[in-house]
Amino acid sequence: MVMSEKKRALVLVSGGLDSTTVLAMARSEGYDCYTLSFDYGQRHRAELLAASRTAEVMGAVEHKEVLLDLRTIGGSALTDDSIDVPEEEGTGIPVTYVPARNTVFLSIALGWAEVLGADDIFIGVNAVDYSGYPDCRPDYIAAFEVMANLATKAGVEGRKLRIRTPLIDLTKAEIIQRGMALGVDYFTTVSCYQATDSGKACGVCDSCRLRRQGFIQAGLEDQTIYGA
Amino acid sequence: MVMSEKKRALVLVSGGLDSTTVLAMARSEGYDCYTLSFDYGQRHRAELLAASRTAEVMGAVEHKEVLLDLRTIGGSALTDDSIDVPEEEGTGIPVTYVPARNTVFLSIALGWAEVLGADDIFIGVNAVDYSGYPDCRPDYIAAFEVMANLATKAGVEGRKLRIRTPLIDLTKAEIIQRGMALGVDYFTTVSCYQATDSGKACGVCDSCRLRRQGFIQAGLEDQTIYGA
Repeated sequence: MVMSEKKRALVLVSGGLDSTTVLAMARSEGYDCYTLSFDYGQRHRAELLAASRTAEVMGAVEHKEVLLDLRTIGGSALTDDSIDVPEEEGTGIPVTYVPARNTVFLSIALGWAEVLGADDIFIGVNAVDYSGYPDCRPDYIAAFEVMANLATKAGVEGRKLRIRTPLIDLTKAEIIQRGMALGVDYFTTVSCYQATDSGKACGVCDSCRLRRQGFIQAGLEDQTIYGA
Repeated sequence: MVMSEKKRALVLVSGGLDSTTVLAMARSEGYDCYTLSFDYGQRHRAELLAASRTAEVMGAVEHKEVLLDLRTIGGSALTDDSIDVPEEEGTGIPVTYVPARNTVFLSIALGWAEVLGADDIFIGVNAVDYSGYPDCRPDYIAAFEVMANLATKAGVEGRKLRIRTPLIDLTKAEIIQRGMALGVDYFTTVSCYQATDSGKACGVCDSCRLRRQGFIQAGLEDQTIYGA
């Protein structure tokens, strides 16, 4: 048996526009991609279905879904049914912020990367249209990378783990343009915080608003069905 | 209603000797303690029962158990039934090392700490009898703390999160002596990697060996029932 010589990358995927673009970018760099998503108690399963579907369509070597019940700690409109998803833009850190979510997701990705011997972890964080979440800032990502290299065998063995954030400085319109150029089909991606189980978007949450504006600014057709 | 003015601490508890001592230490510093443990796919539930029991006995304000299935990523004798727990001391990083476990646990603790407004997270890591795990070293903990302050609202709001590791430089014997001085009853704690559901210890895994030696070196009676 001839073993693949390609480098492995772990890609966090949510089934949304950003992480699907990241997966296309990682693939275009020649990585064997392993994709990871989380059943963390979010409001709908549509994004998990979209995540496994896009992983398959885009040739991921293996896709895993980790069960993690963040409803136990609550604190966000996405994990606590008693907090409504807002339908207007607010100021400050919004109630859709899930406490420490990127840290938790990157940490579990770090564990699987260690098992796989993968030195690159891709995540679709973005500091432009970032909705005010503290864990989408470049300083945070840099600090996570330092910590990750001390946390694992990779660092002990002299390898270097990298947290890759190819979207971090892009606008939503630029993200869509890059993805289109790489052949991404955005129709099956789900961005909405409160989509129906079949993946129909509300059209009014922060995430829907950013997506809509992105297609308009990119001058590209948005096939998303809003108004669920 | 008079609200408590005491500071809140989040304490990671596993039902074992070390984290039970940490809980006693946090309590002795005057914190209102919130305890957190993980149903992560470990080999037995005895430690989870011990964790909730010790939390209650030691006056924790609230105890939570988060479901997180680390068997999905495997890579450790503790989360993959196809890897045996070794019965002799080895060299290097042992197979009982769960990839990125402390990072994952601290990350979820960070999320709950943010919900609670707690600025101190206590964890019972130890750099002396640390079994060769990379995520028990002081440099790692310091790097996690830096990252944590960038990851969350606390940092944005100018507060300072601290990762507290009061056991980090203590021998097992010293840990036991400190705990005894604070009134800890170690009989109900479970250290064994492969305890029976009723909490009986194997007596031969790394964790049992360190516990046994600790009591001998402390010159204190070990009431643990070994040889399950």
